[in-house]
Order: sequence, then structure tokens, then C-alpha cells
Amino acid sequence: MVLGQADRSQTTGSPIDRAFLHSATMPLSFRHAVLPNGLTIIAEVDPAAHTAAAGFYVKTGARDEDASLMGVSHFLEHMMFKGTARRTADEVNQHFDNIGANYNAFTSHEMTAFWAHVLPEHLDEAEDILADILRPALRQSDFDLEKNVILEEIAMYADQPFWVLYEQAMERYYPDHPLRHRVLGTPETISALPRDAMQRYFDDRYSPDNMVVALAGRLDFDARVASLERRCGSWRRTGARREYRPIRFGEGALDRTSDKVNRHYLLMIAPAPSLRDDDRYAAMMLAQVLGDSEGSRLYWALIETGLAEEAQAQYDGRDDTGELYVFATCSPEDAVEVERVVLKEVDGLVASLTEDDLQRVRSKIATGVTVAGERPAGRMKRLGHMWTTQGQYRSLEDELARINMVTLDDLRRVASKHPLTPRLTARLSPAG
Amino acid sequence: MVLGQADRSQTTGSPIDRAFLHSATMPLSFRHAVLPNGLTIIAEVDPAAHTAAAGFYVKTGARDEDASLMGVSHFLEHMMFKGTARRTADEVNQHFDNIGANYNAFTSHEMTAFWAHVLPEHLDEAEDILADILRPALRQSDFDLEKNVILEEIAMYADQPFWVLYEQAMERYYPDHPLRHRVLGTPETISALPRDAMQRYFDDRYSPDNMVVALAGRLDFDARVASLERRCGSWRRTGARREYRPIRFGEGALDRTSDKVNRHYLLMIAPAPSLRDDDRYAAMMLAQVLGDSEGSRLYWALIETGLAEEAQAQYDGRDDTGELYVFATCSPEDAVEVERVVLKEVDGLVASLTEDDLQRVRSKIATGVTVAGERPAGRMKRLGHMWTTQGQYRSLEDELARINMVTLDDLRRVASKHPLTPRLTARLSPAG
Repeated sequence: MVLGQADRSQTTGSPIDRAFLHSATMPLSFRHAVLPNGLTIIAEVDPAAHTAAAGFYVKTGARDEDASLMGVSHFLEHMMFKGTARRTADEVNQHFDNIGANYNAFTSHEMTAFWAHVLPEHLDEAEDILADILRPALRQSDFDLEKNVILEEIAMYADQPFWVLYEQAMERYYPDHPLRHRVLGTPETISALPRDAMQRYFDDRYSPDNMVVALAGRLDFDARVASLERRCGSWRRTGARREYRPIRFGEGALDRTSDKVNRHYLLMIAPAPSLRDDDRYAAMMLAQVLGDSEGSRLYWALIETGLAEEAQAQYDGRDDTGELYVFATCSPEDAVEVERVVLKEVDGLVASLTEDDLQRVRSKIATGVTVAGERPAGRMKRLGHMWTTQGQYRSLEDELARINMVTLDDLRRVASKHPLTPRLTARLSPAG
Repeated sequence: MVLGQADRSQTTGSPIDRAFLHSATMPLSFRHAVLPNGLTIIAEVDPAAHTAAAGFYVKTGARDEDASLMGVSHFLEHMMFKGTARRTADEVNQHFDNIGANYNAFTSHEMTAFWAHVLPEHLDEAEDILADILRPALRQSDFDLEKNVILEEIAMYADQPFWVLYEQAMERYYPDHPLRHRVLGTPETISALPRDAMQRYFDDRYSPDNMVVALAGRLDFDARVASLERRCGSWRRTGARREYRPIRFGEGALDRTSDKVNRHYLLMIAPAPSLRDDDRYAAMMLAQVLGDSEGSRLYWALIETGLAEEAQAQYDGRDDTGELYVFATCSPEDAVEVERVVLKEVDGLVASLTEDDLQRVRSKIATGVTVAGERPAGRMKRLGHMWTTQGQYRSLEDELARINMVTLDDLRRVASKHPLTPRLTARLSPAG
């Protein structure tokens, strides 16, 4: 019986073997095309989906900026919604609203992305708006007005203790590499930024051969390639490439106090595999066993005991490196004890790993990625992120199978190659 | 061509006609069964889904409590996770974690629900855990410990200005009806609550004929009915029913000050159709035109102009009544002006309605419900909520078609039957 797995008595094999079996019933297909000007178009086409999603992923972010222009990627992301040759800023928003689009954009160290999630019959209009805003007017008057919005955003984030601590820790951890840049920039760099410098950054970095259009859901791939050729085919390619510089890691302790915080904030960083390294699966699983938000070593030792309000570990991969973060919040008087417990759990992790840990994490990951992949917006984001960082496609089923094959020995090997012990420890405490 | 709608030049008809067409390709089927003890089981079975979800929806909440036991529904929801005859509290969490479940519970005035979202091969185990915790041990020692957690939760919510204002406004708006009850209870009612009173409430209200099991996704319905019969078939039915009392609405103004807030908070309430009244579709659309979080009258008049940080309208339906809420946050010195603008937009809404408004709202709703319905967890929640409040099934496509048929005249008729002008205006301002 096809649906027999719903009854426990008939269940055999691991959850991921099962996920593999399901895939046999999915008519989902991967498609790939490159326009003459270098614009890459990729899609997971799913005729059974009820919606469709499209995103432009540009391989440019805070790490690609000159230090003097710090924040230009994020400021530019804002400016993309301020109008084009064909649409005013109001019209951009109205046209998205008219088709009931869920739409948004984001900027990180690694990339800048613009996406929309719509009913299938509105995908063409969504693509039209996205392609249009990807060639922005960048008018001086809009630039001057938006500069104040950015400065307010920087001021707002300055009220968030972990954000502030993260920015300062990254500056110490990457002492001479642009990964130290603040995504929002600083009040100084933003205030001093001229419009022409943003225009030059845009002209160079937003080249069609430095971006990918990711599509997912119910769509006609050939029709999409034809319409993207019509809309983006004349965009000039510049051959923009990311410059990969050697990385040296900072270390030690960073202690800060502030009269704006009431709690103690702890952030630890250790080097981890890059997204191009298949050891990333083991690194992600180690982070989950150590510090998933529930059912993890840190959860049991710090949250269940009431010693900390928050205590998590997280793997964050980039295309040429990666980080393992451990962070916690607690009462200032428990700060020393919390840090002691965190280090005890980190140092004792490898020796205490069990098959139960592996099985629990496999199950959680299998659920998480399957749920994310159930919506075209989730599939589109996975595609866009994967192509931008790794330049290749791997199916969800393939990734789940690789996760399923990770053994306890793999976890131990990766933990020995990339020790979990923090290289940098940053602390933020109440002043006085 | 089947996928032709991806190209704008071929698009005809409204988005919702199109959503209707899509449904022809979905092999999704509704199933319904009732066990001899009255337990209703409903499902939207979708063989193409990658996951499955199950929820127990109990038709009991704050409105079904004696005033002296206020908060017992929510406290009981917590106790359901504290162990059963077969599982300790730790085992409940571990067993959910072992299958990688996304799981949670909630309590409102109207209902209490417990659900899990898993890979299809884990649905049986998820159902086993859910059915088990629905017959909790309610041990005195756990009860005493959890009482402190509830009291801390009440203290935490007391720090949230809109929550406090909402609770006080509801007490004034429903002066002599249990809809005035606070879902969390008060420190007094919770402190005084005896375990035996909770046990009696549970024994009466958690009757199989007062709940529904909602299922969605990739599952074998007949196998699920058989396993639920095995797990829940011996539960004793009590014939528990909700008591519907006549409703009298309070009105006027409620002014509060607090030295804990820095901003001005405004909350307005007007009566609206119930969830059993098909006018609810028009009421929901009126609320969206007036105060959706973006692209609405209040957004343009208050957010875009920078007069308020937040300004929204929301329709909230219950099984025998409904409310239209309007809420805003602003600087204390703008309070009078913001309230003036809100009332101007509310009073001018009907005369200013256009076909563009209707079309924009239809598109937004079509996207929202389709995206929510793309995940089995979303479908399960829609089913459980709908059956608990309306006692009947309506497909997503049917609901979208009804929304699509709402005309400007319908909006005007419903606004005339249920005037939007607030019956109660509640304000919270900084003290001194």
C-alpha cells in the first residue's frame, strides 16, 4: 500500500530513506539556462504547486565593499525600491500589492537578494517588477532622503545588545578581512557616501554574470527564460568577480559594558567548514546536538536548569569559510557559571556523542528541510542561496541522503579538524 | 498549454477564478468520520504532500470557565505536557524530539488545541503522543510547580502594553459575558485554583464529543480512524456543550495611564459578524481595506506620513459574535491627531470604496490563503479551527470563490449592518 508508512507497525528504515522514497512520487524537475549576457536562470518546476516564487540573487554584499563605502550594499538594496525609468517608488509597491505578492529583500555579507511569492498567474508580473527594480533610477533626491532612513536603522539596531556584540566580535575575529565589515555600515561611512560611488558600485557588481534568477513552483520554464531574455537580455556584463583574500582569525576575549543592558550577553566564535566543503553537514549536526533551541546539550544544561534564558549554538557557512557560534543570555551574577557550563558542554561534546543524538538530529533536519521545501518560496530561497555560494545544484533529496549518511565517526573527525573550542569569546555586561 | 498562465499576455479572469482552475489538478480529498464515543475525525488527504499534520481541537476555552476558575483552560493546556500514565514529562518532549516533530499548543477564549507536524512516516507516533497527553496525569506535585510558571507568565505579559490594554478593554466591552475573561487568568484566580477543580473541568470539557481531530497531508485516512479508535475509543463522553448566553456590548471610553510606557496606545472595538455568518468575508475585506499592515487607508494616512508607528485594523470572528479592532501606537503628543485621522478614515471608508480596493484585497487574500494551505500544518489548522467554530467543512477553493463573489455593494451592506464606528475606545498613555 502506497500510504502504508502512516502506520508505525509498517515503518522501516530511517526517516531519510523514507524521504527518498517520497521523492519518487514528486514530479519536480530542475532546469537551468544561461542567457548570452551571462545571466543564470535556475528552477525547480513543480506542476503540483499552488504558487510560484522568483528571486534575483546578486553575489555582492558587505564583504565586497571598500572599507570607505561600508554599508553601500544594504543602502543600495533600499534604493532598488525607490523607482525606475518606468515606475515611481509608489508604483513599485502598488504593483506588488495589486497582484497580492509576498515580497521582500535582504543584504548580508555574502549576497543581496530580491524576491516575490505569488499565485502562478501573477508570476510574470512579479518577474516584470523585479527585473525593473534591478535597474534602479538612483535619483539624487531619493538618495538624500533614504540616507536618513538608513541612519535611523543603524540607530535602531544599536539598541539590540546581541547585534552590537556580534558586530564588535566580527571586527575582532576578522581583523584584516572584509568579513569584518558591518552590513549596515557606520554613521560615518553612510553620512559620507556620495551617490556617484553607489552608482559605480551598482554598475560593476549588479552585472548579469554576477547574479542568478531562482524560480520555483508552478511555472513554465521555457516561457520564463524567454521573458527574462526580453527583460534582462540587454543588461551589460562586467565580468565582476568576488575577490577571495586569505583569512586570518582573531582570538582572545572581548569585554564590553553598557549602561543600556540589564542582562549578561555571551557570544563565542570558532572556525567551521565552508559551504563548499561536504563536512558542512557534520558541522551543522554538531551545532544542533550542542545547541539546538530545544533538546540539545546547552538546552538541558542551561535552559532546563533555569541558569540562562537563552543558550544556543549555530553553524553559519560562507562560500570560503564558516563559523560556529555559541551564544547565551543570563543574569549578570550567573555569568561566570554559565560560561563554565558552556565550555564544559563544548569540550565534552565529542566524547559524549551517541547514536540517539545522531538519530534525533537527523529527524529534526529531515522535518525542517522538508517543511521548508514544501513551499515554492522556500525552494526558491534554497536554490538562490546554494547557487550563489556554491555555484552548483543539489536536490533536497540528495542533501537529505548525505545528511543521513553522516556517522558518529564523521562527527568526531570534523570536530577534530575544526575544533569546537571558541577562538574568540565576547561578553557584554551591565555597566557599574 | 496547461502552464500558460505564467505569461501575462495569456492571463484572463480574476486570481480567484484561476485558483479555482488549479484545484482541478489537486487530488486533495476531504474525509470525515465519527467514533462511537462522539470523537469527530476530519482530514484533507493529499497524496502529493511531503509531510502530515495532526491536531486535537477541544471546544473549550476562557469563555467556558466559571469566573472563579478563570485561567484554568490555559493552565490545563500547560499540564497536558507534564506527563501521563505512560510517559513522564521528559519523555513527552523526548518522544516528540525523536521523530523531529514541530509541535505546539494554544489556548484562546474559544478553544484549546494541541498539534504536531511531521514527516508522513512519523504521523502514527505523533498521534500516539498527542492522544496520550490528551489523558494527562494531573499530578498534585506537577500542578504546584506549574502554578509558579503560570504566575510568571502573567507577570511577563503585564509588561506588554497592548496586552494589558486589550484585557481591560475586553472587560469593559463584554461587561456581563464570559468573553470578558482573561485567558491567562489573574494572579488571584490562579493562586486560589485547587487541583481538583482543574480535574473536574478536564473530566467534563475534554469529552470526545467536545473535540475534533484534524488531519492533513500525506496519510491513510482509514488507518488513522482505526488507530484513533484504538487510542481514544474508550474515552468517556460527557455531552459537554458550550453555553451561549445573550451578549450586551459595553461602550464609551477607557483611559489608563502607566509609568511603564513611553508611547501612546490606542485600541478601538466595534461589533462584527460571527464566523457562522457569511457576511464574515465582507467584514474581513473591509478590515483589510481599512487597516491591512501595508497598502491600506490607515497605512497611507498614518504610517507613510510618519504620524504613527503602527496602525492596523483586524476582523476577529467567534462562533456567536465577532469584533473589528483598530489599534495604533504613536508619540503621546500626536495622540489626539492620530485618533482624529483614524476616525476620519473609519467614517469615510464606505463612501470611498473602489473596485481597485476590492481587487487588491482579493489578490492579497488569495495569496495568503493559498500559501497557508500549501503546508499540511496550515490545512490542519484551518480544518480544526473551522470545525470547532462552525461545525462544518468548506474547501479552500469554495472559500476563495465566495471571497471573489463579494461586491462593493456587499461591503457597503455589511458596513451598514455592522457599523465600523468604534463602540469602545481604550487609551493607554505615559503617566505624569
